[in-house]
Amino acid sequence: MTIEASTVTEGGKSRRLRLGMVGGGEGAFIGAVHRLSSRMDDHYELVAGALSADKDKALRSAITLGLDPTRSYASYAEMALKESQRADGIDVVAIVTPNHLHVPIAEVFLNAGIHIICDKPLSMSLAEGLRLQKLANTSGKVFCLTHNYTGYPLVRHAREMVQTGVLGDIRLVQVEYPQDWLSEPIEQQGQKQAEWRTDPARSGAGGCLGDIGTHAYNLADYVTGLPLDQVCAELTTFVPGRRLDDNVAILLRYQGGAKGMLWASQVAVGHENGLRLRVYGTRGGIEWIQADPNRLDYCPIGEPRRILTRGSPAVGTAAARMTRIPAGHPEGYLEGFANIYTETALAIRAVDAGKPIPPEVNFPTLQDGIKGMAFIEAVVASSEAGAAWVQPQFV
Amino acid sequence: MTIEASTVTEGGKSRRLRLGMVGGGEGAFIGAVHRLSSRMDDHYELVAGALSADKDKALRSAITLGLDPTRSYASYAEMALKESQRADGIDVVAIVTPNHLHVPIAEVFLNAGIHIICDKPLSMSLAEGLRLQKLANTSGKVFCLTHNYTGYPLVRHAREMVQTGVLGDIRLVQVEYPQDWLSEPIEQQGQKQAEWRTDPARSGAGGCLGDIGTHAYNLADYVTGLPLDQVCAELTTFVPGRRLDDNVAILLRYQGGAKGMLWASQVAVGHENGLRLRVYGTRGGIEWIQADPNRLDYCPIGEPRRILTRGSPAVGTAAARMTRIPAGHPEGYLEGFANIYTETALAIRAVDAGKPIPPEVNFPTLQDGIKGMAFIEAVVASSEAGAAWVQPQFV
Amino acid sequence: MTIEASTVTEGGKSRRLRLGMVGGGEGAFIGAVHRLSSRMDDHYELVAGALSADKDKALRSAITLGLDPTRSYASYAEMALKESQRADGIDVVAIVTPNHLHVPIAEVFLNAGIHIICDKPLSMSLAEGLRLQKLANTSGKVFCLTHNYTGYPLVRHAREMVQTGVLGDIRLVQVEYPQDWLSEPIEQQGQKQAEWRTDPARSGAGGCLGDIGTHAYNLADYVTGLPLDQVCAELTTFVPGRRLDDNVAILLRYQGGAKGMLWASQVAVGHENGLRLRVYGTRGGIEWIQADPNRLDYCPIGEPRRILTRGSPAVGTAAARMTRIPAGHPEGYLEGFANIYTETALAIRAVDAGKPIPPEVNFPTLQDGIKGMAFIEAVVASSEAGAAWVQPQFV
Amino acid sequence: MTIEASTVTEGGKSRRLRLGMVGGGEGAFIGAVHRLSSRMDDHYELVAGALSADKDKALRSAITLGLDPTRSYASYAEMALKESQRADGIDVVAIVTPNHLHVPIAEVFLNAGIHIICDKPLSMSLAEGLRLQKLANTSGKVFCLTHNYTGYPLVRHAREMVQTGVLGDIRLVQVEYPQDWLSEPIEQQGQKQAEWRTDPARSGAGGCLGDIGTHAYNLADYVTGLPLDQVCAELTTFVPGRRLDDNVAILLRYQGGAKGMLWASQVAVGHENGLRLRVYGTRGGIEWIQADPNRLDYCPIGEPRRILTRGSPAVGTAAARMTRIPAGHPEGYLEGFANIYTETALAIRAVDAGKPIPPEVNFPTLQDGIKGMAFIEAVVASSEAGAAWVQPQFV
Repeated sequence: MTIEASTVTEGGKSRRLRLGMVGGGEGAFIGAVHRLSSRMDDHYELVAGALSADKDKALRSAITLGLDPTRSYASYAEMALKESQRADGIDVVAIVTPNHLHVPIAEVFLNAGIHIICDKPLSMSLAEGLRLQKLANTSGKVFCLTHNYTGYPLVRHAREMVQTGVLGDIRLVQVEYPQDWLSEPIEQQGQKQAEWRTDPARSGAGGCLGDIGTHAYNLADYVTGLPLDQVCAELTTFVPGRRLDDNVAILLRYQGGAKGMLWASQVAVGHENGLRLRVYGTRGGIEWIQADPNRLDYCPIGEPRRILTRGSPAVGTAAARMTRIPAGHPEGYLEGFANIYTETALAIRAVDAGKPIPPEVNFPTLQDGIKGMAFIEAVVASSEAGAAWVQPQFV
Repeated sequence: MTIEASTVTEGGKSRRLRLGMVGGGEGAFIGAVHRLSSRMDDHYELVAGALSADKDKALRSAITLGLDPTRSYASYAEMALKESQRADGIDVVAIVTPNHLHVPIAEVFLNAGIHIICDKPLSMSLAEGLRLQKLANTSGKVFCLTHNYTGYPLVRHAREMVQTGVLGDIRLVQVEYPQDWLSEPIEQQGQKQAEWRTDPARSGAGGCLGDIGTHAYNLADYVTGLPLDQVCAELTTFVPGRRLDDNVAILLRYQGGAKGMLWASQVAVGHENGLRLRVYGTRGGIEWIQADPNRLDYCPIGEPRRILTRGSPAVGTAAARMTRIPAGHPEGYLEGFANIYTETALAIRAVDAGKPIPPEVNFPTLQDGIKGMAFIEAVVASSEAGAAWVQPQFV
Repeated sequence: MTIEASTVTEGGKSRRLRLGMVGGGEGAFIGAVHRLSSRMDDHYELVAGALSADKDKALRSAITLGLDPTRSYASYAEMALKESQRADGIDVVAIVTPNHLHVPIAEVFLNAGIHIICDKPLSMSLAEGLRLQKLANTSGKVFCLTHNYTGYPLVRHAREMVQTGVLGDIRLVQVEYPQDWLSEPIEQQGQKQAEWRTDPARSGAGGCLGDIGTHAYNLADYVTGLPLDQVCAELTTFVPGRRLDDNVAILLRYQGGAKGMLWASQVAVGHENGLRLRVYGTRGGIEWIQADPNRLDYCPIGEPRRILTRGSPAVGTAAARMTRIPAGHPEGYLEGFANIYTETALAIRAVDAGKPIPPEVNFPTLQDGIKGMAFIEAVVASSEAGAAWVQPQFV
Repeated sequence: MTIEASTVTEGGKSRRLRLGMVGGGEGAFIGAVHRLSSRMDDHYELVAGALSADKDKALRSAITLGLDPTRSYASYAEMALKESQRADGIDVVAIVTPNHLHVPIAEVFLNAGIHIICDKPLSMSLAEGLRLQKLANTSGKVFCLTHNYTGYPLVRHAREMVQTGVLGDIRLVQVEYPQDWLSEPIEQQGQKQAEWRTDPARSGAGGCLGDIGTHAYNLADYVTGLPLDQVCAELTTFVPGRRLDDNVAILLRYQGGAKGMLWASQVAVGHENGLRLRVYGTRGGIEWIQADPNRLDYCPIGEPRRILTRGSPAVGTAAARMTRIPAGHPEGYLEGFANIYTETALAIRAVDAGKPIPPEVNFPTLQDGIKGMAFIEAVVASSEAGAAWVQPQFV
């Protein structure tokens, strides 16, 4: 998506894909992000929703969003059923609920023959994820897991640098994701976002680990492609009364000998969304920071550090095709998120046309969700064993 | 638009506004930005276009964008005529052509009773702008001029800080907009964007001055609200064979005694879009940089510098209502641009309903275009007089 | 040392302290740093040296430095003997040799009744350090260990912030010290600095660990004052043929429940001397980076990040007394190092006058060296046990 | 001064140069900076002083500094006389008084055959400076003017980049020096540093202009070597009751067609010592900021921005010889100032030995002071004429 190509990205389509949404009603955060991302490149039209488990709230939200009220459903099951029976039923559903509902909902829609865009982490357990994977594999449907940070153009470029050997053999991975919004027990004071994220019944075994630790892991995995061998982890809960971890510290061993460290925290005062990745190889090192995503620092060994900017000639094709506006005009979180949606649209159009998904399309999938769940379980096991080395079960 | 409020922004509307576009066909840059901005908050639907003066190209572009081919017009005049006759004709037109066509096109659409969103600078001359203003004032239609940097949330906050007296009496304004893309004579090598921008017949009297100097002036004007009294300017053309200025240096005197400096350049190697504003008052100073727009530095006198971040509790309501996602997740150029579109939609809906435009709505208008043209003419006159002090004619 | 006070710091002394040096001849690095630091505030005069084990080189170096050739000694033992017999013999010796000689030399000079300034790490083993400690305790002499980063004014301020409770209860410590100068096997290509640092016989059990890992540990210890409880560590040697670790990754448990991570590396391409400390408490977080040492980021919970600058009114007395020049004029590594020398001079003058060392004087001592050796041994033991938790023996 | 060479810099001398000082007694700022800078590389020994016009204060200051009380003089005239009669009299005098005394003192010491190190600006007027120049030219003595920013290694490298054509033909110079310490009328509240700097009788015709505007001008001049052709300036006094300018805005025309802007301010809230230089040529651009002086940004046209660091292999010999410690360990203001002192020592030793000054020695001299005074007078004249273009009289 260079300047000229952005026009191409906008269109080249017979029609917009029909999108449904489960979750994302009034008061939600990530639902609005999904909707906006779906509109960005004009590949989708939101036409149906089960926006809340509360029927009235679902309808009110649907009307606010301009949906046809008859396509506002009281349950996701009803929605899957009814939409799959319509000639103009949804092509794809976005699942933006708390974690415990991801798999049950995905199963219903896959069974109804509908493509899936699902928020992360994938599931409540690795076993549940594997069950879903089996279904998805036989369904032939597209499954996108919105590990959205992989949509940033310079993350794509970082990956390309690793793949093309610019950094040499990778030795070190340092990844961190500090936040501070849970520094105090706000889940005990009625903050909805905090409530479900600190509730094992809705979040799963990981608190900070599942919410942002998986993002950090996924980002490192996406960029380096290094298979994780073992983790040595310590989970901590600092805030009294909290039921899940709010700080994650991990030593990483990768297959082939690379090493790493991963830190995620929700009690690191002064950090909003401090996701940062550093990768060091025998020939160079790179650093990328989500809060300033249009910049990728690259240092070739023995030479000065260079600041690679999104949209500039120094950046290769993997990033260029994810770029909408010229260098120096910042793109942000929503553009990165929208890139995932747009790539998913390209995949859905290909699959629905019986064609292979273009090789340059590279959004995170259910397989990444499985890896994430294996990572979570290995980390929890390691921590419970007092920071023993544990090998994630990537099956 | 806090997290919760963003849902409100998306909807609350009976229907999307019908948008037409003049210009913005294949190979254009800013047209795609306008379209994307119109989609961001779901207030608009693009339904018609005269996307190119070349009829075939116009049609091809329209089809690519998914327009009904019968609403792809060979000329803007035809489009204004036909659309104004349809019951479902466009509510508003986006004019995204080179500068010399802004006023002719706007006149036709205003006469057809259609709201206007127009790229900047407004016109080829102050006189032409004033002629348009007269028409617009009697039309009762909304006129938005896309000085898009005013849409950034932290620019809104900077303005609010000045208005509420946080900075005390303003003494100094330092604004700059360096770029480097015209460091070499690429307009002589077939680069389309460079060609018209360096052509007086299509750009007007200012080159760098009209293209980005007006943005810098507008940003300072928007934030400080200080009426400009006099300019002392030197325009320079560094690149041999270039027909318009590529560097702008200005001393500014504001009414009331504040002083300033403005620098804009298209030959400053190393700068992509280096728009930066600094304002200093008796009680504090601020700094904002477009390439890192989620940060506003604020230093109260005698105290440490603070980094105010978009979406954080430190930022007031003027910024909060322009904010889609939480602090730490970067917003960018497109979100700022979209804010202008969304505010314009709010204004159009109000006007069409016979209601006053809500007071918090604050997008740049034709009046800002008039000021910009007066600024351009004063700067050119000053420079031609060897950097004499010249008073802009804000009539 | 505010502007006015710096005059006081320069003088207030009957005479300069007479300084000897062991090591630091031609081709050395840290010797010149010590000499310069000793001159900075005019408390010392270098008068004697055993600058090299090579007698000719020692003499040549001494003459170059303007020493009286009769006070250039062929061995440190001779120097200790002869200088202790002179009426104008040295007051203090600076030991700037490779690690394996620190203790033997220090013992000789302590026995000769001479104060010690010694480079870090203290010794080859904890046992050797403890042996020295016993001698030093009975000697009544001042012993400074040049963990020089503790001399930076803003490190002093960070410590003061912790001590006065500004950050609340400390929860997290993230400290790192990446370098890249050993990314390739330069010790096999004749680089002298690399040779001894990667030689267990001269460096001890830690490579990167002893060279810079101890600095990172010491800095965190100095600022937070938290007693280290346990380490879980992985040492890695990436460069083929290297005999000591070149990468250090540690999980930290502090007494009282705080947690931490420590990373040190000499193969992290793109880092020169990237020492960085972050500390997070219940009420605030701070960040300090050695490469930009005149800035301390401080974020109170729920408020904007503040940039505290050295020399500014926002910084307290602990930092102010270590400050020579106004805010905005950068101080650097040498000023921080010199602060250690100047504080040591104040201590020596006090001790020699039979007075107590002023309480505000706070340079690192032999006790810090013991802690450092205990840290090294615990980390090595942990790593050898496959990242088991090991408790450092601080005896 | 690479790591190894720093030893050479420290010595290679038969004896230290004997330094006297006029001014710099208790409560002074810059005197202590000069003294420290003289000690840094061990080329000087302070042996005499007329440290204050107040005899008692002078003596008290001398004793504090460890001077022989018989060499504390009640007047600079007495000092010049007595010292010139001693066999071990001073070689060089440092003049660190307010501006109005620079020339009278320098004349006395030049007449006494003593080398001069003088603070800036040179004089009260261009005419006075020219009178001194005539005397100095016949004296054969070394005259250093401490425009200390030229001593920073990366300023040397920037100059080398211009000279070797790396940047191509220079088009643009943007230099600024904002401070905020005079934002309020502290000179009316007894602040000594503010008092004389805002007093025309002691500072001359320029306030902010003479104090820091000349530094900005000198820095640009030193780096680019471009002869200044004309200035178009506006001086402003913002603080009520102040007798000299506290803000300086200038458009610059250089011979050969380059253009520039210079801004200096002492009322820009939030800036401590914000000296910054940017230079743009046809092949590249650079940026250097005094507060972070170990970094020089360099952008070759069409390529990514590079961060050149002091001490790194990317930096040439002009910088390397001014460098004491490795890359990543910050040097600061005092090291840059000391570089001026050390180069002056090299010049004095050469001149006293009847040898030419080595060509690589490159400290600012009386000639730079003349340029500075011509600059001040041209700016004042331009401003008084309402920002007319005025050509500085560089005679």
